[in-house]
Amino acid sequence: MENKLKELKTKLQEIYDLEMMRSLLEWDQSTYMPPGGATARGRQMAILTRLRQERLGSPELGKLLDSLQSYGETLDPDSDDARLLVEARKEFERATKVPPDFAARFTEHTVQSYQTWTEARPNNDFESTLPMLEKTLELSREYSNYFPGYDHIADPLLELTDPGMKVDEVLSLFAELRSELVPLVESITAQEEIDDSCVRKHFSEKGQLDFGLQVITDYGYDFERGRQDKTHHPFMTKFSLGDVRITTRVSEDYLVDALFSTLHESGHAMYELGIKPEFEGTPLASGTSAGVHESQSRLWENLVGRSRGFWEHYYPKLQTTFRDQLKDVSLDEFYAAINKVSRSLIRVDADEVTYNLHVMIRFDLEAQLLEGTLELKDLPEAWHAHYESDLGVRAPDDRDGVLQDVHWYTYFIGGLFQGYTLGNIMSSSFYDAALKAHPEITGEIATGNFDTLHTWLRENIYQYGRKFTASELVKRTTGGALSIEPYMQYLKTKYGELYSL
Amino acid sequence: MENKLKELKTKLQEIYDLEMMRSLLEWDQSTYMPPGGATARGRQMAILTRLRQERLGSPELGKLLDSLQSYGETLDPDSDDARLLVEARKEFERATKVPPDFAARFTEHTVQSYQTWTEARPNNDFESTLPMLEKTLELSREYSNYFPGYDHIADPLLELTDPGMKVDEVLSLFAELRSELVPLVESITAQEEIDDSCVRKHFSEKGQLDFGLQVITDYGYDFERGRQDKTHHPFMTKFSLGDVRITTRVSEDYLVDALFSTLHESGHAMYELGIKPEFEGTPLASGTSAGVHESQSRLWENLVGRSRGFWEHYYPKLQTTFRDQLKDVSLDEFYAAINKVSRSLIRVDADEVTYNLHVMIRFDLEAQLLEGTLELKDLPEAWHAHYESDLGVRAPDDRDGVLQDVHWYTYFIGGLFQGYTLGNIMSSSFYDAALKAHPEITGEIATGNFDTLHTWLRENIYQYGRKFTASELVKRTTGGALSIEPYMQYLKTKYGELYSL
Repeated sequence: MENKLKELKTKLQEIYDLEMMRSLLEWDQSTYMPPGGATARGRQMAILTRLRQERLGSPELGKLLDSLQSYGETLDPDSDDARLLVEARKEFERATKVPPDFAARFTEHTVQSYQTWTEARPNNDFESTLPMLEKTLELSREYSNYFPGYDHIADPLLELTDPGMKVDEVLSLFAELRSELVPLVESITAQEEIDDSCVRKHFSEKGQLDFGLQVITDYGYDFERGRQDKTHHPFMTKFSLGDVRITTRVSEDYLVDALFSTLHESGHAMYELGIKPEFEGTPLASGTSAGVHESQSRLWENLVGRSRGFWEHYYPKLQTTFRDQLKDVSLDEFYAAINKVSRSLIRVDADEVTYNLHVMIRFDLEAQLLEGTLELKDLPEAWHAHYESDLGVRAPDDRDGVLQDVHWYTYFIGGLFQGYTLGNIMSSSFYDAALKAHPEITGEIATGNFDTLHTWLRENIYQYGRKFTASELVKRTTGGALSIEPYMQYLKTKYGELYSL
Repeated sequence: MENKLKELKTKLQEIYDLEMMRSLLEWDQSTYMPPGGATARGRQMAILTRLRQERLGSPELGKLLDSLQSYGETLDPDSDDARLLVEARKEFERATKVPPDFAARFTEHTVQSYQTWTEARPNNDFESTLPMLEKTLELSREYSNYFPGYDHIADPLLELTDPGMKVDEVLSLFAELRSELVPLVESITAQEEIDDSCVRKHFSEKGQLDFGLQVITDYGYDFERGRQDKTHHPFMTKFSLGDVRITTRVSEDYLVDALFSTLHESGHAMYELGIKPEFEGTPLASGTSAGVHESQSRLWENLVGRSRGFWEHYYPKLQTTFRDQLKDVSLDEFYAAINKVSRSLIRVDADEVTYNLHVMIRFDLEAQLLEGTLELKDLPEAWHAHYESDLGVRAPDDRDGVLQDVHWYTYFIGGLFQGYTLGNIMSSSFYDAALKAHPEITGEIATGNFDTLHTWLRENIYQYGRKFTASELVKRTTGGALSIEPYMQYLKTKYGELYSL
C-alpha cells in the first residue's frame, strides 16, 4: 500500500504541476506578455488544461484510487493520507462525470464571451451580451446536471468554489445578514458624510508601492517565496508552495487602491505559503474554499489593515513617505477617510459595510437565473430593483449595473460571488478566535508586530490547506457553526464608534 | 494528403508549444522567480521536456511521417511543405535514436554539474569539477554514439547546433582564420593602447536602459511582440513568433555592457520575429543554426552598432543622455574606446578582433577531449598553453581559465562554441551582400534609419527560419561557399584605420 500511495502521489503531482504551469502562463499574460503573445498563449494554456483533464479523469488513476480505497478506510479519518485519498477521489469523480469535451467547449465560449463583454461594457450595451449569457447559463446548467441529485441547481457550482456549502444554507445566512446590514447602512448614512479628500491627492507610485511592500514584509509575507508585480486587476497566484505571487495596481490620485489591494492579496498569499510543505503536489496543497481564502485576505486587509491600532503604528510612517500630502492630516481624519461608508454603485469600490449587499444581490440573481425564476432579458431591471431596495441607489445605466463585474462573462453563472461575503463573515470568527487565544494580538498590531497573529493563523488554518473544509475550520477554531454574530458585532462596534451611532 | 499534412501540423504544433512553454518557465526563472520556486520549477520543466520527447519520438508521429513520405517526394524540394517534412523527419529520427531516459539522465546530471561549477569557480577549484566533467564527457560521447557512422565524434553534437556542419570543415575554416587573426592581433597590440576611460565612469541604469531601448526601437525590434527584462546573463527567448523577448544586465560603471548586449540580443530577436508567420508551430519556426543566429546578433551589435556611421547619428544623443560624463569626449575618442582591442583573458569581455581566438581555443579543446587525445585532468594546462600561443596571455588561475565559461557545466562538451565564430564570419558575408544590393544602407545608418537593412535581412534570411541551412543561406545571398575573406577584410579595414596600421 505504501507503494500504491507513492504511485498515487506521483500521478497527482504531475496533475498539480500542469495546473501550476497554467497559472504561470496566466500570470505572465496579466503582467508582462506583449500583445503579440496572446494567440499562442491561449493555445498553450488549452494544452495544459487538456493534459491535466486527461490525467485527472484517467482510468489508471481510478484503478489506483480503487486499490487504495479499503486501505484509506483503515486510516484515522482525520489523518493527512485519509483526507488526501478522499480529496483525490472527489477530484477524480468530478473529472469523470463531466465529458472530456465540456471543458474545451466551455473555455472556447468564455473566450468569446469575455471579448464581447470588453466591448459591451464601455458601450453600455447589455443587449449584445445576451446571446453569450444565454449560452453561459445553458453551460452552467449543463455542468450542474452532470451531478444529478442536487437540492438546488447551483449546488454543484458552489461545490467547485465553496465545497460543502449548499445554496439554501448560504441563502438563509445571507438573508439574516441582509436584515442586519440594511438598517446599519441606513443609520450610518443618516450621519454626516466623512470627508475623504485627504486620500484623494497625488501620491507617487513608488511611494505607494514601497509603503505597501514594507507593510506586507512586516505581516510576514515571505519574499524568498513570492513577489509583487503590477497588473490591471490584482490577484494572487501560485506556481508551487515555494512561489506564491501577488499583483497590484496603482492609482496615483487615490491612496487607498494599491495599498489595500496589496494587503488583501498578501492575505491570500500567506494562506497558501502557510500550507504544510508535505502537501506540495497534492490536491491538499491549496486553500480550502473561496470563502476561507477571502476570510484571510479580508482579515489582513480590513480587520488588521483598516484598524485604528494598525494606523497608530503606520500612520507616522505614511506621513513621512507622503509628507506634503499628509502633514496636516490627523490620524483620526485619516482613519475615518479609509473607513468611509457610502451607498455606491460599484462592488469593488465598496466599503466594508455595504460591500456584502453588493455580493448578496449577485448571489440571489444568479440563483434565480439558474432556477429559471428570472430571465436574462429581465436581469438589468432586476439588478436595479435590488440595488434600490438594498442600497437605495440606482445606476444610470447597465455599464455600472449588470455589466460592471467580469465574472459572469468569464466563468459560470453561479458560485463565484458568495465566497466574498462568506469570507467577510468568517474573517471575524477566525479573528475573534485568535484574539481569544492571544489577547495580546491587538497590542502587538499597534506596534507593527504580527507574529502572534500570523502564527495562530498558520497553526489553525493555513497549514491544513484543503485537508479540512470551511465548516470544519470554523468548528475547530470557534467550537461552533458559522454565524454572522461576530462579524455583525465587529461592524457595529467599529462603525458605531466611527459614526457615533 | 492535405488532411494528413494538417494532422502532422497539429501534432507538431503541440510539440512546439511544449517547448515554448518550457522557455517561458526558464525565462521566468532567469528574471523574476523568487528562490523558493526553484525546486518545483525544475520538476515542471522536466515534465514539459518529457511530454515533448514522448510526442516527438512517438510511433504515431513516425507512421504519419511515413504516410507522407512519397507525397513529400512529389513536391518541389525547395517548397515550404517539402522542407517541413524533411525537418520533421530529422527531429523525429533524432528523438527515436536516443533512448527516452537519456534526456532525463542528462538533465539530472547537468543540474548537479552546474551546481558544482557555481561553487568551483569562485573557489578556483577545477579539481572538484573533474568527476562531473568526466561524466559529461561520457554522456556527450554516449549521445554521439547513438548516431554511428560519423566522421568525427563531435559531428552529431554539432548537428544539434549547426546542422549540416562537420567538425573537419569547421577546423579547417578556423585554422585559416587563426593564421590571419594572430598576426593582426600582434600588429594591433604593437600600437599605442587606446584609452577607454571615457566609457568607464558612472552611467545611471535608467539612462543606459532607455538609450538601448531607443536604439533597438529604431532597429525595428517590435515591442508589440517583445520586451526587455533584466537578468544575470543576457539571452533571447521565444514563446511564439508573436512573443520574442530579450534580457540584459547593467553595469553602472561601464557603458559598454548593457548597450551592446541589448543590441546583440535584439539581433537574435529580430531574426526570430522575422520568420514567416505561416511557419508558426512547426520545426521551421526557428533560426536555422547557432552560427546564423549569431551572425544576426553580431551584425546588429558590431557591424552596425560599433560602426562609425552609427555613432555619427547616435553619439550626440548619448551625449545628451550622459551630459556630464561625455560632454568633453569627442566622437573619435568614444568610437575608439568602444572598439579598443586588447589581449585579455575573458571571452565575454573580448573585443571583435580577439574574440574568435577565445572561441577557437575552446572548439579545439573540446574536439580533442571527445577524441580522447586530451585528458580532462590535463585540460587546465592545455587551456593555458593555447592562450599563451594564440593570445600571448596566461590566466593566473583556473577561475579565469578553464572555469570561466558555464557551457561545459550545463550542456554537452561539444557543439556550443563554434557558432560564435561561424556567426562572426557569416555576419560579414551577409552584410556585404546586403550592401551590394543596397549601397545606400551605409548612409542610412548614419541617419539612424535601418529599414533597408532590416528589410533585406528579413527577405533574405529571417523569413526562412529553418527552411534553409546556413550553407544554403550563404549560397543564396553571396553566390558561393562560406569564406573568411569578407570578415577578415572587414576587420583589417576597420582596425587598420583605427590603429593606423
